[in-house]
Parts: sequence; C-alpha cells; structure tokens
Amino acid sequence: MSKNSGVLKRQRFGYNTDSCGRYRRFINFTKTALSAPVKIALLGFGTIGTGVAKILLNNAARIAQAAGRNVELARICDKDIRTPRDISVPENILTAGIESVINDPAISIAVELIGGLEPARTFVLRLLESGKDIVTANKALLASHGAELFETARKHGRTIAFEAAVCGGIPILNALSTALQANTLQSINAIVNGTSNYILSQMESGQTSYQEAVKQAQQLGYAEADPAMDVDGTDAVQKLTILAQLGFGVAVNWKDISRIGIESVDAIDFRYAKELGYRIKLIAAAVRSNGGLELHVSPTLVKADNPLARVKDAFNALRIVGDSVGPVFFQGLGAGQLPTASAVVGDVIDTVLGRTAITFKALNLWGKETADSGRQSAAVKSPQEFFGKSYLRLNVKDQPGMMHEISGVLSKLGISIASMIQHEPETKNGGEPAVLILTTHETREGDLLKAIQALENSPAVLEKVVRLRVQG
Amino acid sequence: MSKNSGVLKRQRFGYNTDSCGRYRRFINFTKTALSAPVKIALLGFGTIGTGVAKILLNNAARIAQAAGRNVELARICDKDIRTPRDISVPENILTAGIESVINDPAISIAVELIGGLEPARTFVLRLLESGKDIVTANKALLASHGAELFETARKHGRTIAFEAAVCGGIPILNALSTALQANTLQSINAIVNGTSNYILSQMESGQTSYQEAVKQAQQLGYAEADPAMDVDGTDAVQKLTILAQLGFGVAVNWKDISRIGIESVDAIDFRYAKELGYRIKLIAAAVRSNGGLELHVSPTLVKADNPLARVKDAFNALRIVGDSVGPVFFQGLGAGQLPTASAVVGDVIDTVLGRTAITFKALNLWGKETADSGRQSAAVKSPQEFFGKSYLRLNVKDQPGMMHEISGVLSKLGISIASMIQHEPETKNGGEPAVLILTTHETREGDLLKAIQALENSPAVLEKVVRLRVQG
Repeated sequence: MSKNSGVLKRQRFGYNTDSCGRYRRFINFTKTALSAPVKIALLGFGTIGTGVAKILLNNAARIAQAAGRNVELARICDKDIRTPRDISVPENILTAGIESVINDPAISIAVELIGGLEPARTFVLRLLESGKDIVTANKALLASHGAELFETARKHGRTIAFEAAVCGGIPILNALSTALQANTLQSINAIVNGTSNYILSQMESGQTSYQEAVKQAQQLGYAEADPAMDVDGTDAVQKLTILAQLGFGVAVNWKDISRIGIESVDAIDFRYAKELGYRIKLIAAAVRSNGGLELHVSPTLVKADNPLARVKDAFNALRIVGDSVGPVFFQGLGAGQLPTASAVVGDVIDTVLGRTAITFKALNLWGKETADSGRQSAAVKSPQEFFGKSYLRLNVKDQPGMMHEISGVLSKLGISIASMIQHEPETKNGGEPAVLILTTHETREGDLLKAIQALENSPAVLEKVVRLRVQG
Repeated sequence: MSKNSGVLKRQRFGYNTDSCGRYRRFINFTKTALSAPVKIALLGFGTIGTGVAKILLNNAARIAQAAGRNVELARICDKDIRTPRDISVPENILTAGIESVINDPAISIAVELIGGLEPARTFVLRLLESGKDIVTANKALLASHGAELFETARKHGRTIAFEAAVCGGIPILNALSTALQANTLQSINAIVNGTSNYILSQMESGQTSYQEAVKQAQQLGYAEADPAMDVDGTDAVQKLTILAQLGFGVAVNWKDISRIGIESVDAIDFRYAKELGYRIKLIAAAVRSNGGLELHVSPTLVKADNPLARVKDAFNALRIVGDSVGPVFFQGLGAGQLPTASAVVGDVIDTVLGRTAITFKALNLWGKETADSGRQSAAVKSPQEFFGKSYLRLNVKDQPGMMHEISGVLSKLGISIASMIQHEPETKNGGEPAVLILTTHETREGDLLKAIQALENSPAVLEKVVRLRVQG
C-alpha cells in the first residue's frame, strides 16, 4: 500500500465531537476516497469462491457504492489454480501459496472458503495474527474452534464475520446480532440443512425411497458424494452451535448436542404424520424451557400449519420467537453458489464499513463474559431433562392383549398417550405383525427413553422402536 | 451532561491505526463506560411508547449489555401525562412540553412515536438541529418528508433510524440496508398492512362480509375507529415508499404510487380465486421490469403455493428476490405494542453502538446522489407502462352472443385471455345477469385500462368491471 493511499484514507475516516461531547465517526464518500481500494484475498476457489469472485468483479461499481470505497479482489489462493472456472479472473492474482496472502500487508480482508478444520484453522489464525479481518462461510470451523478463533481476533484487534456459515443467503445472523437484540429469545426452530430437507421432501411426495432421494440430491448437486454429514445431522448440529451462541449466548461443543439423522425416517412415517396433521422435517432446535436451554437436532413432526412444515426442497428456514417481537419467520436458499456468496459479500461490505467491528465487539462471541452476562444466556440442559412430545412407531404382534401390555408398560413409567393409530391389516387373518403409532403428551426425555427400552424388551414389540420428536 | 461523563466517553470511543494505515474505531466495554448512561427521550406515550418504556425499564441490564452502556429513559413527553399506562415510570420524567427535551443537551436520542405529519415533523427537525439522533416508527412522516428530514440530519451530523416504520418487528430494513447489499434486487412483494390482511383473511374464511370483518378488526384493536388509511392502501403505499428507497434507491412521493384498496374485493372473488389456484392479498409491490421499476399497491391474486398466500390474520410478510440471493421470505407481526417496540429498541441499541451512523452515511437515503448512483436505482415507470396479468370480474347479460362480443372487444385491443370461468346460473331460465371471470396474459396496463373502459361501454357488460392484479 503506497504512502499516498494512506493519506487518502486519513481524509476519509476521522472523528469529531458533538455538543454532548460524543465522539462521532465520519465517512466522506468523495471520489478520492473511492479510488483507494480495500484489497481482499479469497482462500478457496471452489463453488462459493467462484460465486464471490463473480459478484465482486461483475458488480464492482455497486459494491463500491455500498462499501464507500472500491473493493479489489487482490488475490485468489487455491491449491488448484489450473482448472478453469466459469469466470475469468486476472491471471496474476491466482496463487497456490497462502504465504503470499499472509505476508502482504496491503491485503486487509481474507475470505476463508476452504471449508473443514485444517488447514482452514491454521490459516485463519495466522491471517488474524498478521492483521487481516476474516469473512468465512465455515460452520464446521466455528462450531469446533469458535472460542480460539474469536479470542485470537480480539487479541489482535481484528474481526470475524460469518453470515454465510448458517443458512446461506438468509440474513439470520445479522438479524440476531442487531435488530432482534431487544429480545430475550424463547426459541429457534430451524431447517438448516438443504440436502436433508430435499430428501425428506422427495420422500414425502410419496414416490421416492430414501435411497433414491439421496441419489437425486447428489445428481442435483445438493448432496456431496458422501452425504453422511448432511443426513446424520452433523451439519445441522454445527449450525445450531452457532445459532445458540448468537441467540442464547451459550458456548457448546457441537459434539455434545443431541443428534438424530434422517436415516431413521421411513416412507410410512410421512403417511402417519400426515394423518395426524403433521409434516416431517429435520429440525435444529434451541428452546428455552424451565430456565434451561434444550438443544437438539432430529427429524420432527411439525404441525401442517406451521410455516416450517411448508419449507420444500433445498430451502432453509428459521422460526424464531422473542419475548417482544413474537414469532418471526425467515426462509431462503441455504446453500448454492450465489446465495452463499451474497452473504459473504454482504459481510465484506460490513467489514469495510466498520459495522462488523462494532457488532463483533458488542457481541463478545465465545467470550468469557458471555455465559454470565445475563444477556440471553441460559444453562444448557442435559438431554435426559428435555421435555417434549414424541411420535413412536412400533412393530407389534397383532394379537389379543397386545394393546393392554403396551399401554401397561407406558402407564407404569408415567408416559401419557396423546393419540394412537393402528390400521386394519391388509390381510384378514390377524396374528401378523402390525404397525402401531403412538404420540405422547409432554414427557421428560429420560422417562421416555426408559419407556422405549421397556417397550423393546416387551414380547409384544417385534423391532426397534422408531422415535421422532413432535413440535409442541 | 457533566464534564466528568464526557471524559468517560472519551475513554470509551476512539480510534487507532493498524499496520495497513486503516483507521479503526475501538470500543471498550469497561465497567466505567457502562456506568455512563445514554439518555433518551420518548415522544409519544401511547401504545408503542408504553411498549418501548416496558422493554427499556424491564430489561435494562440486557440492553446495557447489548448497547455497551446503560440506556436511561430520561424523559417521556406526551400531551396526556395523566392517564395511567400499564407500566409505572418515575413521575419526574413525564412532561407535556417538548422544549424540555429539545433544550436538554444531555439527551442524545429522541424516539418519535407521535405519528402523523405535524407536529411530528417540526419536532424531529428541531431535535435534529439541537443535536439529537432520531429513532422513529412514523412511516407517514418519512414517506412525505423523508428528503427534508434526512437532509437535515446529514447537515447536523445526526442519524435517523426507522426499522419500526415498516412491518413492525420484522427486521427487514436492517436486512435491506446491510446483509442483502451485495444484491441488485429484482422485486419486493409484501403484505405490509395487518389490518387489511386480517379483513381479507376473515372474508376468505367465507363466513364474514367485508363490513363484519372490519368491525371484528376494530374490536380486536387491529383497525382504527376510522380504518380508511388501512383499507384504501394509504398505509401500504407509505411503507412501499420506504421499501423502494431502501431496496431500489428511488425517491417517490407516496401520492404518486398507483393504489387500489381492498373495498373493491367481494366475497365471491375469493371463491373464484381459489378455483383458479390463488388467494387474494393486498400486495405492495416494487418490481424491476424492462429496466424500469413498477410500484403499486393493490389486491392481488397470489398463487396458493407462494408463501405470501399463506400469511394469515394480522401478520406481515415480504418476499424479496435478489440477483444473487434468490428469493428470501420474511414473516412476522407487523404491528402491535411489543413487536413494534422491539424494532424501536433495536434501533436505539444500534444508534448507541454507532452502527446506525455507519449505515446512515453509507446509504445516503433520499440523498441527491441516490438516483444516479447506479447502485440499485431504477427509473420509476408510469402506471400506463406497467406490465402484468389481471383478473377481471364482469357482470354480464347471460344471452347468445355475449361471449362473442366480449372476446371481440378484448381481441381488438390485443388483450389475450389466459383463463375464463362462467358457472351455470342457479335459475335455469337464462337471460339473467351472470358472472364472468377472465384472467389475462401479461398486458400493458394502458391497454388493459382501455379494454376495461371498452368492456364497460359494451351493452353486454352490466356493471363496473372489478379488476385485481395477478402475481406472475
């Protein structure tokens, strides 16, 4: 960075004092100022990285207007800089070496889109130490190393922005960090994994098995070659970790969050759910209850008139309830090149303008004070103490006394049945396995798990009990 | 404000320079800083004002945490300070005189909740001139005097925050001003008036006439004693003016926006709309089309699977499409004491933190540069040039040649029919008035209006044609 542009900047930013003695930052959007660009580096030139490059290069004038100065894509770093992408970038900004970013003092913002834990973690730490602000879409990294990264950023007076890490283009972290700050949140219930929502939507439409739906998701580019992290709830739990930090001020290790994937859901569960007036969605939930906070990800029966029930295909959505604002609902594309890149570039603009610096300080995320700040923090409940309704699918012997035995097991453990479905068997003989669906009233999780075990030990129950949550 | 607290502030805010020569604002959340409160005044102690007082007084610790310092409700100004409200406030902060707010240099933020144009306009101008930042929920004021107010604020180095002016607790202005900035918006379609949405919902449920629904809305406190501004679209147009400014950078006079209220909708329109696969909503729309921007408020047939179609009762919602983010949908309570107060207090926190100052400068709302900034601005189209689909309800003579004549009128003017419904009359005689429903393909508005006039002049058509828009 030339000495000259430093001078230009000094003309742009400054402070003055008003009649109350308040310090005021002022920004002058003069042409001189616009000509002194902010240089940013992109780490990772995959799908999202290409999207970010597209937005920055194709909309440079508009972004300069929004950010108050030109934003220059000064470096793109990827181990593969040979494979052509569907945007052409100046050859000389491509590099395979991270050192040229870390060691370039002219670069002030690094956009981390490598994904995964390493080398992303080491790179981000070194970039923060060398004075760069970070914009990232890496939920796994934040869910695993949030505390370390934020502490390092604070130590070096830098910031981390991460709107793109949760629900792609939906500006949800922004809403939680700013406009909804007057609220104590009651709950966040969210569909945060587009792949599993697509698979569930296909299965619900009734013509697709789980295996086929997974294959379709892969063909459409929603699911990875190995979709394990999507369908087993890992991705959703990592995003929930971030939402819990922002919405409730709690720092949890994502591995400690109760998690059930969508593999346990069968085509017939959609049919029974519909009969009961519900849809099935993979819900990531953070719910305040009895002074504690319940955190879990699991396939959940959602009432058909809840807007979350109607979120189809690869969309993401969140229903947030605050003590003042009441219920607020957000829906949008949770993944994909441009929606995610939209969030990344929004964060770049916020970082250039200095909004990120203010929010970052004020929230003190993953900071020591958060837990006892009294702001919105809540003690995370142990799964045994969760309290909620459940759907149970039992394969039972269709014979006299079966119902008496099952209801006896539940009654002994204090589990109250809310509804029950058993359809006539297709063959008229009786005595063959039948499906029995039960929903419970609100039950302590520990008691329910005991009851499930007792049911599975009962001679009337033939297979493992399938259990889904029901949104109260 | 004592000299002492001025010193405390100087310790809190400041700037330093980093290795790139960038200026950085820093904020220290020390206990000393927290003990120097920001003093705010409330103008208007009605429903929303009482809500703001409740949040500020009942959640002082949490708000201090979010804002980085204590927020002190130092003055409440209302012409009626005798009637008891459902919150108790210190007697000595109540005043009937605005001068004690304007002349108190210790008050740095004034929250304007008086509503309407005067005296709100004069008060806000004087408050800005005397060095106070403004937070307001007054859409009418901004829609009529936005340019004057923002110019005055800029001149005096002050800010205006107004999240609560549009869609109550839904953090939509925040999203448009920050997180969605990377996008060129394609469209905003929104339900922004809870009263008319409640009335339409009741009529749609099929058991309520327009008059009964209005009465119910009044009993529930949704509608004013005189609900004219809600049902004739005035309120919606004023909010659309603000959305158009934020989303598309255009400054329009709300009186110039094409506006149709919900009075023209009849119970039978809901039945026909349903038959065609639609719901009817009062939609405020800003849509980019052929390089221009269409702005209008009107009862609109919305496809049943569009999330806007399912927004019931007093809820508000917005569907925004950006070039990168794709469709994003927001829903929440658009009015009411605490949802609106939630937005007001969010703005207070943003103003205290300095986020508002950054956003306010960057957006340059109602500023001279906006129109030719190239950012997102678009030329506002004249209504004659709008282009879209329509629903027409005709009362016709049920006699031979009627359909031939009507189709002839439309064909001559180049209007293409997309669908048509005429049900058998209940009496079997024929010759009695019948209802004919037509929907058109995309049509230039000027041509459609000519066609409607021609239809009304035709002897086959018995009454004024009812015309609703259809969402493409």
